[in-house]
Amino acid sequence: MSNQPVPKVSVVMGSDSDFSVLEEATLILNRFGIPYELFLTSAHRSPARTAAFAQRAAERGIEVIIVGAGAAAHLAGVIASATHLPVIGVPIDATALRGLDALLATVQMPGGIPVATMAIGKAGARNAALYAIRILSLHDVALKNGLLDYIASMSREVEIKHEKMQQAHSSKKQIS
Amino acid sequence: MSNQPVPKVSVVMGSDSDFSVLEEATLILNRFGIPYELFLTSAHRSPARTAAFAQRAAERGIEVIIVGAGAAAHLAGVIASATHLPVIGVPIDATALRGLDALLATVQMPGGIPVATMAIGKAGARNAALYAIRILSLHDVALKNGLLDYIASMSREVEIKHEKMQQAHSSKKQIS
Amino acid sequence: MSNQPVPKVSVVMGSDSDFSVLEEATLILNRFGIPYELFLTSAHRSPARTAAFAQRAAERGIEVIIVGAGAAAHLAGVIASATHLPVIGVPIDATALRGLDALLATVQMPGGIPVATMAIGKAGARNAALYAIRILSLHDVALKNGLLDYIASMSREVEIKHEKMQQAHSSKKQIS
Amino acid sequence: MSNQPVPKVSVVMGSDSDFSVLEEATLILNRFGIPYELFLTSAHRSPARTAAFAQRAAERGIEVIIVGAGAAAHLAGVIASATHLPVIGVPIDATALRGLDALLATVQMPGGIPVATMAIGKAGARNAALYAIRILSLHDVALKNGLLDYIASMSREVEIKHEKMQQAHSSKKQIS
Amino acid sequence: MSNQPVPKVSVVMGSDSDFSVLEEATLILNRFGIPYELFLTSAHRSPARTAAFAQRAAERGIEVIIVGAGAAAHLAGVIASATHLPVIGVPIDATALRGLDALLATVQMPGGIPVATMAIGKAGARNAALYAIRILSLHDVALKNGLLDYIASMSREVEIKHEKMQQAHSSKKQIS
Amino acid sequence: MSNQPVPKVSVVMGSDSDFSVLEEATLILNRFGIPYELFLTSAHRSPARTAAFAQRAAERGIEVIIVGAGAAAHLAGVIASATHLPVIGVPIDATALRGLDALLATVQMPGGIPVATMAIGKAGARNAALYAIRILSLHDVALKNGLLDYIASMSREVEIKHEKMQQAHSSKKQIS
Amino acid sequence: MSNQPVPKVSVVMGSDSDFSVLEEATLILNRFGIPYELFLTSAHRSPARTAAFAQRAAERGIEVIIVGAGAAAHLAGVIASATHLPVIGVPIDATALRGLDALLATVQMPGGIPVATMAIGKAGARNAALYAIRILSLHDVALKNGLLDYIASMSREVEIKHEKMQQAHSSKKQIS
Amino acid sequence: MSNQPVPKVSVVMGSDSDFSVLEEATLILNRFGIPYELFLTSAHRSPARTAAFAQRAAERGIEVIIVGAGAAAHLAGVIASATHLPVIGVPIDATALRGLDALLATVQMPGGIPVATMAIGKAGARNAALYAIRILSLHDVALKNGLLDYIASMSREVEIKHEKMQQAHSSKKQIS
Repeated sequence: MSNQPVPKVSVVMGSDSDFSVLEEATLILNRFGIPYELFLTSAHRSPARTAAFAQRAAERGIEVIIVGAGAAAHLAGVIASATHLPVIGVPIDATALRGLDALLATVQMPGGIPVATMAIGKAGARNAALYAIRILSLHDVALKNGLLDYIASMSREVEIKHEKMQQAHSSKKQIS
Repeated sequence: MSNQPVPKVSVVMGSDSDFSVLEEATLILNRFGIPYELFLTSAHRSPARTAAFAQRAAERGIEVIIVGAGAAAHLAGVIASATHLPVIGVPIDATALRGLDALLATVQMPGGIPVATMAIGKAGARNAALYAIRILSLHDVALKNGLLDYIASMSREVEIKHEKMQQAHSSKKQIS
Repeated sequence: MSNQPVPKVSVVMGSDSDFSVLEEATLILNRFGIPYELFLTSAHRSPARTAAFAQRAAERGIEVIIVGAGAAAHLAGVIASATHLPVIGVPIDATALRGLDALLATVQMPGGIPVATMAIGKAGARNAALYAIRILSLHDVALKNGLLDYIASMSREVEIKHEKMQQAHSSKKQIS
Repeated sequence: MSNQPVPKVSVVMGSDSDFSVLEEATLILNRFGIPYELFLTSAHRSPARTAAFAQRAAERGIEVIIVGAGAAAHLAGVIASATHLPVIGVPIDATALRGLDALLATVQMPGGIPVATMAIGKAGARNAALYAIRILSLHDVALKNGLLDYIASMSREVEIKHEKMQQAHSSKKQIS
Repeated sequence: MSNQPVPKVSVVMGSDSDFSVLEEATLILNRFGIPYELFLTSAHRSPARTAAFAQRAAERGIEVIIVGAGAAAHLAGVIASATHLPVIGVPIDATALRGLDALLATVQMPGGIPVATMAIGKAGARNAALYAIRILSLHDVALKNGLLDYIASMSREVEIKHEKMQQAHSSKKQIS
Repeated sequence: MSNQPVPKVSVVMGSDSDFSVLEEATLILNRFGIPYELFLTSAHRSPARTAAFAQRAAERGIEVIIVGAGAAAHLAGVIASATHLPVIGVPIDATALRGLDALLATVQMPGGIPVATMAIGKAGARNAALYAIRILSLHDVALKNGLLDYIASMSREVEIKHEKMQQAHSSKKQIS
Repeated sequence: MSNQPVPKVSVVMGSDSDFSVLEEATLILNRFGIPYELFLTSAHRSPARTAAFAQRAAERGIEVIIVGAGAAAHLAGVIASATHLPVIGVPIDATALRGLDALLATVQMPGGIPVATMAIGKAGARNAALYAIRILSLHDVALKNGLLDYIASMSREVEIKHEKMQQAHSSKKQIS
Repeated sequence: MSNQPVPKVSVVMGSDSDFSVLEEATLILNRFGIPYELFLTSAHRSPARTAAFAQRAAERGIEVIIVGAGAAAHLAGVIASATHLPVIGVPIDATALRGLDALLATVQMPGGIPVATMAIGKAGARNAALYAIRILSLHDVALKNGLLDYIASMSREVEIKHEKMQQAHSSKKQIS
């Protein structure tokens, strides 16, 4: 991994099957040119690995940790308890309870150790990356400007989709 | 603590306010003469202490670990991930969500690391102790006989309460 | 069934359709070489059969009973009320309520008769077997060592999956 | 209890603390002059007593069984599995989950053994008695007429309460 | 429809799409030879039709009314408010909330007008018919005997399924 | 009631105990000078009265009907099915399920008969009146202006409360 | 778009993927000949556009605004806070939580700014249009008559479906 | 407010009654010496004020915005849509649904505009402040050291509480 920039964001997941959700976060990080790393570790199956990762993240230059997990989703909380970095949790819909279990296990952290919880699933993963960028842009003017552009582009995209919907609906009406 | 018997059961809690619930477990353990210890540690506020406790529990002679926790209740899962002993989780009603958060965070463990989850609150704490006794009685005939007596006594207690209810209801009827 | 070892674990289910879930438990028991039996009985459709099974389980040498059931899942509780053995309940997602009904009907046992409840579905079935092994290994050093190996292997498996994910992600990046 | 009429309805509960809820049922049964009995038994703490009760209820002349229970409320289902009589279940709010556990454990019975489930708590207990009366009135013209009177009186009571509310509101308006 | 026996049970539904669920009830009624009728009416789209149906059901010889409905399922309650017959409600999974809405709208009836609520969906429909038969068998010895046979056959069916499962599992084991 | 203006809004409730909630609606209607009536009727205990009320409301000059109900809250839906007027439903927290039952029974109306559902409890009752005023103000310029004033006053009230909070907090800080 | 009638109803959505649900509303509006417009805007991605739309809706002649949104569905509330027109909210099932999130985020509006909430999904969209028509028909006799016809036709449709179900069921019975 | 440091954190709430919850955040901010401001504004009752606040927060030097709101809690999302700063949402238990409504309305943000959601109530408010400090400490070594001290002190506090619990329990045992 020589010549690669030092990652600023860690994207951590408890199972390789979670990657299809967390990939949404990596797409945003790529778009903004934020160097990131992927890390797979389990709160329960590899607790020592998880603790070691969290304890060393700051000294390796990581500034924000994004964590996705499903079921009794402890991974974000366990990592947050072993670092002072901001941790962002993404609950994943991985059981019959459709992510409600992961949401409550991630968000209802007791006082003292916060986890910034996002929505269940892909929307949450995308927002986790955007939240990391909001944090990083506090001290990075270029990134802040990129973020402002992105926010403006979302607004323009709404207008474009509006026009398309209008045209599709008008055509349909004229035909029928 | 010299001259005290080596504890076989650890009763662990994440907050001193949880003791009022877990005391139910100690009352049962006392009744059956099971030596136990109390241990306070937090999955999030004292993660190293928690890991050290769990890793050394077996070698200290502990056979069953009872863990009560509320909110995003990770404590039982975190302990279960660092020991091979059977862990029993008691979800505690400690937030606006009335223990549903603690229940799901305790019971929905992913495959690999089991936590034996009991009911929310005092009934769960009492049953955690009775479950520990069911486990310990597999290789302790005296304890098994004590457990069978206890089970029989619960049945007799139902009959006594039935009689009392009948009498109270009859008196009430005759008066009115 | 002559020459077969006496089963130590009973895997009980309320409906033959539950076997696809409970098979996860049998795979774990097979891996650890634990002799087990399958038993089908319904709390409601065959109550006498269920009671007879539970009352005789201990004398037949059974040490742990795993019970899977869906809907208003009473089977684990009914069995626990007729034996002093440790009973492990696996809620099954069998109705429109996605296993929430089975979870609450299994875990919210009133004080006196405990059921060790696992997660809903296959993860819960796998963990039920692992929990039975945690119990059995308290007095079986070989089994304890097997369990410690299994726990260590889960941790190594996380590392292997991490490497695979890294490689897959790197290749993807280089291509695009 | 000589000279007392043979009870037609059994009002069964799992705990003496449930009586404050089930008393609502007895008030209705008294009003309609239906002979009933109270019976306390636990699905879990006294399973043999429960089975014996259910098996003999029909031969003792019982026609309808009302069962109240809280938590993982198995009592109605267990009784229904050991009798062919119609069983009416009243879920009781006895845990942190506010009766949702008892409701699901009572109503989500699998195909084969029905339990007629009422609302959680006192409204459910009152309705359980009224439902028993609907059943009994199918072959009892006097009871049917009493039931029709009761239904009509509820309607009149609405009108009376309407008038009272109007008067209270008018007075309040004139004063203010 | 001349020469047909007068129906004793009405199977009512709010939408023709509900028939696939309520057909389960008709299969049971057919098996027991209970004459029944199907009736489609909506609490909301045809309220006068619904009220007229309910008011006349008793005089037409109907003894029990089974009502299936989804969403804000008012149909059973509305019918119960216009008849003194026992009404059995079957909540149907017809919305994104998976029948939880229909369950609560059916079961949480206020004091005064009871609806005997069954499980959500096909199991509930089957049980609704079995509950109607429990009611009807109170004054029909032949039907009572048929019901006892049915209950016994369910128990035998469990044993047959047990044997099949054992054989399937043994074969599988020998092959592997 | 001579000389009183013809009511434009009916405030209907299923139980006199609901008035403490619905009073919030009357306070708003009084403030805006909208003539209204109170009406108590039960979907279940007085169905004929309810149907008659709904059928005649329009011809009596009523333009909007506000309906509060708890439990399996059918009243709003039943009224909406017997009138073409806009009906506004207020779910009331009247059972152990804290109004979730009333909310789902009110809002999940099947296609064809709409009920405009507000929040559970007093906030919902207040908003029901404000929604009635939004409807009535479509053809009443004075009322529209009153509504715009009210909306503006809510905004000013926020600013006033902000100032008070600032002062209270400053004083507190200076003292400590 | 010249010569087109000025729209009276706005059908607003937060995402083009919501149109498949809201199309149900447009079908009803077309049937009743109500001129409407479609508008796509996001509470979060285009807040200025949303505020501008809401502020100008009344002066453009809009009388009712229908708003569909999923997830943390703020769109209806945000629009209602910037107009005095009646706003109707349709929660959309767009996340793992099946629309429960959208329902609560739409209906639980605090006192002051009401949103008339309909059922989740297509039934809610259809009812939103019917509710708009109930409002508009207060001052449009022709529309009122059309609405009364529609209500009557729903009742006739129930009877037709009843007949079809009877015939289908009879044929099936005669064949078998 | 001359001579006061420019606030870095805004603590925003939708109602003055929310201050008792958000005060927990201010206690933490005071402890760490972070200058903050309090701001009261409502997403619904004062939308223009809310938008103006959010748009100008960054230029005034605010780096993190903490937002508490109950019911259909839109305030955090509305603010996040009008700023690029990181926003932290605290759901408040303000309705019959005990904060579940506020939690879902805050956390289930659609892709594009993230809100970092904390636990419901006081624990969430405390954690919101700690999360703001985690963010601010990324570029403030003194603050980072303060945060590390705080994290270490929480761990020591656990040990102290453990000792107290042990002593209290021992005394109690010796007395009894």
